[in-house]
Amino acid sequence: MLKGIGASPGIVLGKALVVEDTQLVIERKAITDCEAEVAKLRTAVEVSKEELTKVKEKALAELGEHEAEIFEAHLLVLEDPELVESAVSKINDEKVNADFALNEIKEMFVGMFESMDNEYMRERAADIKDVTNRVLRHILGVKVVDLADLAEEVVLVAHDLTPSDTATMDKKKVLGFLTDIGGRTSHTAIMSRTLEIAAIVGLSDATKEIKDGDFVAFNGDTGEVIISPDEETIAKYTKLKTDFEEYKKALELLKGKASITTDGRHVELAGNIGTPGDVEGLIKNDAEGVGLYRTEFLYMDRNDFPSEEEQYNAYKAVLEGMSGKPIVIRTLDIGGDKKLDYLPMDEEMNPFLGYRAIRLCLDRKEIFVTQLRALYRASVHGKLRIMFPMISSLEELLQAKEVCEEVKAQLKAEGIAYSEGVEVGMMIEVPSAAVISDVLAKHVDFFSIGTNDLIQYTCAVDRMNQKISYLYNQFNPAVLRLIKMVIDNAHKEGKWAGMCGESAGDQLMIPILLGFGLDEFSMSPISILPARKLINSLGFEDMKKFSEEVLSLGTAEEIKAYVEKTFSK
Amino acid sequence: MLKGIGASPGIVLGKALVVEDTQLVIERKAITDCEAEVAKLRTAVEVSKEELTKVKEKALAELGEHEAEIFEAHLLVLEDPELVESAVSKINDEKVNADFALNEIKEMFVGMFESMDNEYMRERAADIKDVTNRVLRHILGVKVVDLADLAEEVVLVAHDLTPSDTATMDKKKVLGFLTDIGGRTSHTAIMSRTLEIAAIVGLSDATKEIKDGDFVAFNGDTGEVIISPDEETIAKYTKLKTDFEEYKKALELLKGKASITTDGRHVELAGNIGTPGDVEGLIKNDAEGVGLYRTEFLYMDRNDFPSEEEQYNAYKAVLEGMSGKPIVIRTLDIGGDKKLDYLPMDEEMNPFLGYRAIRLCLDRKEIFVTQLRALYRASVHGKLRIMFPMISSLEELLQAKEVCEEVKAQLKAEGIAYSEGVEVGMMIEVPSAAVISDVLAKHVDFFSIGTNDLIQYTCAVDRMNQKISYLYNQFNPAVLRLIKMVIDNAHKEGKWAGMCGESAGDQLMIPILLGFGLDEFSMSPISILPARKLINSLGFEDMKKFSEEVLSLGTAEEIKAYVEKTFSK
Repeated sequence: MLKGIGASPGIVLGKALVVEDTQLVIERKAITDCEAEVAKLRTAVEVSKEELTKVKEKALAELGEHEAEIFEAHLLVLEDPELVESAVSKINDEKVNADFALNEIKEMFVGMFESMDNEYMRERAADIKDVTNRVLRHILGVKVVDLADLAEEVVLVAHDLTPSDTATMDKKKVLGFLTDIGGRTSHTAIMSRTLEIAAIVGLSDATKEIKDGDFVAFNGDTGEVIISPDEETIAKYTKLKTDFEEYKKALELLKGKASITTDGRHVELAGNIGTPGDVEGLIKNDAEGVGLYRTEFLYMDRNDFPSEEEQYNAYKAVLEGMSGKPIVIRTLDIGGDKKLDYLPMDEEMNPFLGYRAIRLCLDRKEIFVTQLRALYRASVHGKLRIMFPMISSLEELLQAKEVCEEVKAQLKAEGIAYSEGVEVGMMIEVPSAAVISDVLAKHVDFFSIGTNDLIQYTCAVDRMNQKISYLYNQFNPAVLRLIKMVIDNAHKEGKWAGMCGESAGDQLMIPILLGFGLDEFSMSPISILPARKLINSLGFEDMKKFSEEVLSLGTAEEIKAYVEKTFSK
Repeated sequence: MLKGIGASPGIVLGKALVVEDTQLVIERKAITDCEAEVAKLRTAVEVSKEELTKVKEKALAELGEHEAEIFEAHLLVLEDPELVESAVSKINDEKVNADFALNEIKEMFVGMFESMDNEYMRERAADIKDVTNRVLRHILGVKVVDLADLAEEVVLVAHDLTPSDTATMDKKKVLGFLTDIGGRTSHTAIMSRTLEIAAIVGLSDATKEIKDGDFVAFNGDTGEVIISPDEETIAKYTKLKTDFEEYKKALELLKGKASITTDGRHVELAGNIGTPGDVEGLIKNDAEGVGLYRTEFLYMDRNDFPSEEEQYNAYKAVLEGMSGKPIVIRTLDIGGDKKLDYLPMDEEMNPFLGYRAIRLCLDRKEIFVTQLRALYRASVHGKLRIMFPMISSLEELLQAKEVCEEVKAQLKAEGIAYSEGVEVGMMIEVPSAAVISDVLAKHVDFFSIGTNDLIQYTCAVDRMNQKISYLYNQFNPAVLRLIKMVIDNAHKEGKWAGMCGESAGDQLMIPILLGFGLDEFSMSPISILPARKLINSLGFEDMKKFSEEVLSLGTAEEIKAYVEKTFSK
């Protein structure tokens, strides 16, 4: 048995196809006919471009605009003279073979991008690797398994899957993925969820332990893989598979239904998104709104701030795309671990306790004003809720609201329309905000609790820090008390309270949050229907009592055990 | 008028003596007689050693052991072959003059130490500079103002003062210090408070604006300097000076008195210390105990962990030195911004939210056990209270207490005596601990609130980060609510609550904390008598009402203004 990280749920039984990493053998050769080598390179680039154009079109048709962008980016890499022309120069100057020259240039760029302290740039390194390896295969005449043309249904086993692999593969024939590397947020994991293909990542040795043609059974939820299972195991997995398929069918039936407890309490199940392209997934999963639109993606991956017009168009697209459902748009949350290349910031010793989010927006008011203008202009196209991140005091909240008033006055003076019905709220992610939420509730229309940061600050633990991540626990009793306090304080002022951290979509947290009286749960689109299924099976009054019992426990461990005992399948 | 940072209180009127930074002119000269240059170097080193020995003896007699250690360190620098012998090699190998060779070696070491991400090492850079400049002055035959032999009473004006300056100066003739650089915790600032000499640091241009012989008036509290004051100003400062001297006399009269409100509530005024040498200052300022002994200094400035025996001796010295008064000793609080050279740690993105203090001690149990053995062994010599830093959950507290039990069982089995009356408590500096302090109070003998970190985590603000330090505010209403909650929860379980953060000695915070019911205030020794004077003038019932009013205000700004209006002199 192998154990990895469950990346996308599903029970799979099937034959393994081990996709070997084609080991490209690249040797430096002294050449004399430079022209021939250059021609070889240029031809390989052209063939690759043609392939990529096809892959892009396929991705566009099958996966949507967002996924197709990756191949547009690959095409751009090949059109970048820095890459191809540098290789050409290398061939001519050093009299070396085309594959060696291109590989050297690749290594240089990849090394450069990988060393950058910027996740976006590190991802670019992966793009460059993927696309240059395609060209190198053409130069070397190396054939690879054609995932677009599979003879039978298979479980793909690979070291990792590239964006090209996932885009070109014949999805109808792929039962699941098993990969050696990757975590829950790696490309393969995200794609598997988007494609709704069961997957396990981070298996370390899958490509070694599993032989081509082996029969395997795996559970995309628990991360367990059985190689050559015996009859008993096959029977067990077949049963699990049936149950899972029935569960999925039951979820399908929940589309269009309300999210309501057995005793009639209605809650809102919304989705978290990063780009207007994500609206598609929300609709597919029947989201009742957007609980968190992270606008920072609009600012990333570019050379300058997005204009008011660009922002307006993005916000309008989401508001219209969700046809009148409520949309919470969070103002720029940059800083901390998220940086913009065109906004140089001082090195900070503790970026999570630093200059970020609303702190930056109140300091660099022009950035904030542009965003708020775009937001208010877009407000006429749907039901907009503006949300400020990282508010830690009443002063900050009042300052941010003051800027909203200025922007509205500007628009009015310019004769530009905006909705008077825009709700203005704030995230609760700093402990001080939770503690004075009674005071803050008087000045907002809503709260949305950001559990990721709230846990981090309340327990003084950086969740990215492996050595102490054991302290990062959503069942921490202090965190739960603060959440309850925030919800109660909102309700006392007649305001609603939501949550947009990862806990909101967690099957073990939902009963507690429901009992606390949470009004809105915002989560990954894929978690919405399972959350509805759970909520529709629970009684609000029961959950109130249950959550009181939870609050009487002293440690995260006890709470988790108690919740698991009560709610685990 | 100049404005700097008030470093040590006092009103001074007097003549300025501007101590110019001797600009050492060092040029590279090609030499032929290497032996003569080496001899010049060695003579200068020997003369410097003799001087330093004298300075050290003077410091020992006048300032105590702790201050004399600096010169012991300087002597060690001169005995380090890495320094002198490297300079000798440079003279011989490169045929250069002694001063050039020594200066090059100095620059190399200073650069190396200054670039280290470690405050202790950066301080070592200052030591190396100070001591090599002394040798360079002897090589070059440069004379400097002899601060040990001053003709009249003066105000010293300097870019900065070195440890040698402050140790050798004739304190009876020095009315005050004014320096261009430095902050409240720089060497000059700390020395001025130890010597009780009024001082202002961080004046930027003092040495430019003030001419030698100028008459100046300054206020070491507000940081204001008036150059050549008019008669009116002189009269004003003379009045202030009289008032200040009367205030100091009134403080003297409070020695030996109780710290008790007008309506009879008694509180404990204790001191924060870093080494056994600091006990002297506590006794001088009539501390009623030690509220925080930071044991990490025992671990710093060395090549390996201190042995159980060394620790035992240090703890015993403090317990005996304070003759039976209660001593809170905090277990190792390393990590965050405090690192040990011999304990390599992974780079952390947010060290303040990382592997530190009790987290490290529970992970590296052998370090913790050694310290606890030393503590329990020392417990027979006085009234020991053990305190754990950075506790964020009940689990951690119970684990730490479990290790105490193991250690006691070990000692018992070995027939080693320890006191059964040791109180065991914890710091409240992580918001989660404050929020569940009702639960934690059942398992401790006391709480001590660490306001510096509590503010930092509660408001998600690194106080060292200049860009957002405006958010770091002891009057933050959320922080005040948490403090009140912690004190109430301690009292409900019949436990006491203290505070060892900077706020405990703050004249504007004391009325609020007193009203909250704080039992113990631990502060810099110099703040103890002023705190007693204030407390002895206040009514507990009045302060209860006052602190309730404070808690009804929504912002730090309003609270500060309200406290200032009520209590500013």
